[in-house]
Amino acid sequence: MAKKNLIVGQSGGPTAVINSSLYGVVSEGIRQEEIGHVYGMVNGIEGFLKGTVLDFEEALPGEKLEYLTYTPGAYLGSCRYKLPQSLEDPVYPELFRRFEEMNIGWFFYIGGNDSMDTVSKLSRYATMIGSDIRIIGEPKTIDNDLVHTDHTPGFGSAARYVASTVREITLDASVYEKKSVTIVEIMGRHAGWLTAAGALARKYTGDNPLLIYLPETAFDTEKFLTKVSSAFEKNCNVVVCVSEGIHDAKGTFICEYDNSVGTDTFGHKMLAGCGKYLENLVRGRLGVKARSIELNVSQRCSASLLSDTDRQEAVTAGIFGVQAALKGETGKMVSFIRQETPDGVYQMKCGLEDVNQICNEEKTVPLSWITEDGSDVTEDFIRYARPLIQGNVALPMGEDGLPVCVYRK
Amino acid sequence: MAKKNLIVGQSGGPTAVINSSLYGVVSEGIRQEEIGHVYGMVNGIEGFLKGTVLDFEEALPGEKLEYLTYTPGAYLGSCRYKLPQSLEDPVYPELFRRFEEMNIGWFFYIGGNDSMDTVSKLSRYATMIGSDIRIIGEPKTIDNDLVHTDHTPGFGSAARYVASTVREITLDASVYEKKSVTIVEIMGRHAGWLTAAGALARKYTGDNPLLIYLPETAFDTEKFLTKVSSAFEKNCNVVVCVSEGIHDAKGTFICEYDNSVGTDTFGHKMLAGCGKYLENLVRGRLGVKARSIELNVSQRCSASLLSDTDRQEAVTAGIFGVQAALKGETGKMVSFIRQETPDGVYQMKCGLEDVNQICNEEKTVPLSWITEDGSDVTEDFIRYARPLIQGNVALPMGEDGLPVCVYRK
Repeated sequence: MAKKNLIVGQSGGPTAVINSSLYGVVSEGIRQEEIGHVYGMVNGIEGFLKGTVLDFEEALPGEKLEYLTYTPGAYLGSCRYKLPQSLEDPVYPELFRRFEEMNIGWFFYIGGNDSMDTVSKLSRYATMIGSDIRIIGEPKTIDNDLVHTDHTPGFGSAARYVASTVREITLDASVYEKKSVTIVEIMGRHAGWLTAAGALARKYTGDNPLLIYLPETAFDTEKFLTKVSSAFEKNCNVVVCVSEGIHDAKGTFICEYDNSVGTDTFGHKMLAGCGKYLENLVRGRLGVKARSIELNVSQRCSASLLSDTDRQEAVTAGIFGVQAALKGETGKMVSFIRQETPDGVYQMKCGLEDVNQICNEEKTVPLSWITEDGSDVTEDFIRYARPLIQGNVALPMGEDGLPVCVYRK
Repeated sequence: MAKKNLIVGQSGGPTAVINSSLYGVVSEGIRQEEIGHVYGMVNGIEGFLKGTVLDFEEALPGEKLEYLTYTPGAYLGSCRYKLPQSLEDPVYPELFRRFEEMNIGWFFYIGGNDSMDTVSKLSRYATMIGSDIRIIGEPKTIDNDLVHTDHTPGFGSAARYVASTVREITLDASVYEKKSVTIVEIMGRHAGWLTAAGALARKYTGDNPLLIYLPETAFDTEKFLTKVSSAFEKNCNVVVCVSEGIHDAKGTFICEYDNSVGTDTFGHKMLAGCGKYLENLVRGRLGVKARSIELNVSQRCSASLLSDTDRQEAVTAGIFGVQAALKGETGKMVSFIRQETPDGVYQMKCGLEDVNQICNEEKTVPLSWITEDGSDVTEDFIRYARPLIQGNVALPMGEDGLPVCVYRK
């Protein structure tokens, strides 16, 4: 009987290490005798339904495969396709017919909340029809908002990017002696993990960023202006980190004060511009030089500040998932469990969590890690996040002077 | 008689290597027997007038000095103070009184056009009063717009940042199969050098960025929309690089179509948002997903993509300037002269140019390096710029997980 094959897909927004998770799954899949071909679905479930599939041993033969761990973005492409709520929908038998056609035994999906929803639905459908395909979710999100895991692959590198960039912005903002306010707008709709990483930029107590605002607490523009005014006592150049999702006590997003916003495919509010709004507010009300900087997609797709811890953990999670699936696990997401050596050194081990407990939930920054006035994070956050941004990756360089990446062409 | 002392200042916006030029000047100043103390003026000429000066052997003793070459931003702080046009102004005798008080024999100023204007005025005043202080300009600008030099320190690293970031943005933009347009707005008011560096991001013919618009030619929104529509034939995800200073045939900035702008201290127009304008235009007129990304200050202050060529050339320029001043040169700017080995390998040597010929001039991208339709650059530009972005710098890492920098505190 022919060996069963493995298939893996990526979904949702890219990160700096989603391809490292992919490398973990694929390299372990190729290594395991029990597994036949290792396939990738191009553009997630949506692409798979159109039949766009590649074989990794043809697409990235030999050592090329490892270059995945230096390549940001999603090598396989992504989708934002949400499977129908009802398992009676004809898309489910269609998907499993295709799985059978390709002799799939193991299915991996790398992504965030919405991708875990896909894993949940497919594994429940498999149970319903008595399919023995093993279905495993690999976590990925710069937002770090998945529950039942200490953190998620992608967060460490994004946090390192934010910390380093905020430090560089601070250096840039500090060259003139004149009062200035720099607002740095950071990704994160409902969870402030990445914005909080701005605190890792500080070199000494009282260093910039002097103010940090997360979406976990209500934002008050008047209190904010008072805080900025007091901050000038510490430094004539004030750097402020704000989450794109900050909102007032009524729940109105600050960006909605000024801007029109739309909604994306999942009905999420599309935010833009709370930084710009606050820049104008500061300039108008305080009469000081103000500018705003949106860190934008580089937060999730820059490899230049890859955290080696993050990269290695992503690979480990991929390998662990394949091994778990071979042991018969299904309907699970690989999770991270933090451990410390007796002398306090950070260590991580993998676990498995019921994917149904994870999808469509959101983990936010604990309120006890935010200062009472909502304008900073505490040492608890620093202790939590610092180990995750450790380790520099020496990116392989091409003749063109830029880091080497691999692409589907 | 006590040895004469050297003083150095930085002015204008920071770059990734302005501190490398500083390192060149300071290390050579300390090395030369003939020179007494090596002083830095904090916040340029403006700070100097207030008496804020440091001694480098106290501020950055021993090996700490070399960390300057890894630190972006301006270590000494900067200013945008313009010396009065009339050499009869009382500020000139005041400055030279202070120079005499500090027993200054050599004065170095690191900056762009406006800083060279300072060097020009001070050296002309020195001639006028018969002072023997040697006054030398060290070039610096990410804009690469200084005349009489092949290129300027700061450009190579900024170009490498732009090229690498545009490539990463392309990877990020390519994960979905749905038509999309990503507008990347790049610094450069009147000179498109840095925007042109987006072309260095291409991995193969026909790769993104598919369109590049510089301020050297007139921009036409209708032709732009037609170009974007045709670009979809090559790639469903179109990345466009635009200079912040693109303008129409009448000279109106595209950002003024939609936004209010102010002016800075030097009377330069402050631009913001042509990317946002084009994003909305594309979405509205072509009905496709569109987003815009302003690369913002990271272009000039990020060390993570430092070009080692740029860094080493900046140091060399600093050293060369000190040696020239010791030989009696004054009123000059250090320039770069490109040379090629017989087998076409890039080499650079330093020269000296009359600073009066440089200040207040602006070097733009030759029209012959821009395609006829104004939507791309030619191979000439690639050949010119590629050597300047070569060489990766292994930044020293701190225990906090981030690159080590030195700061004044």
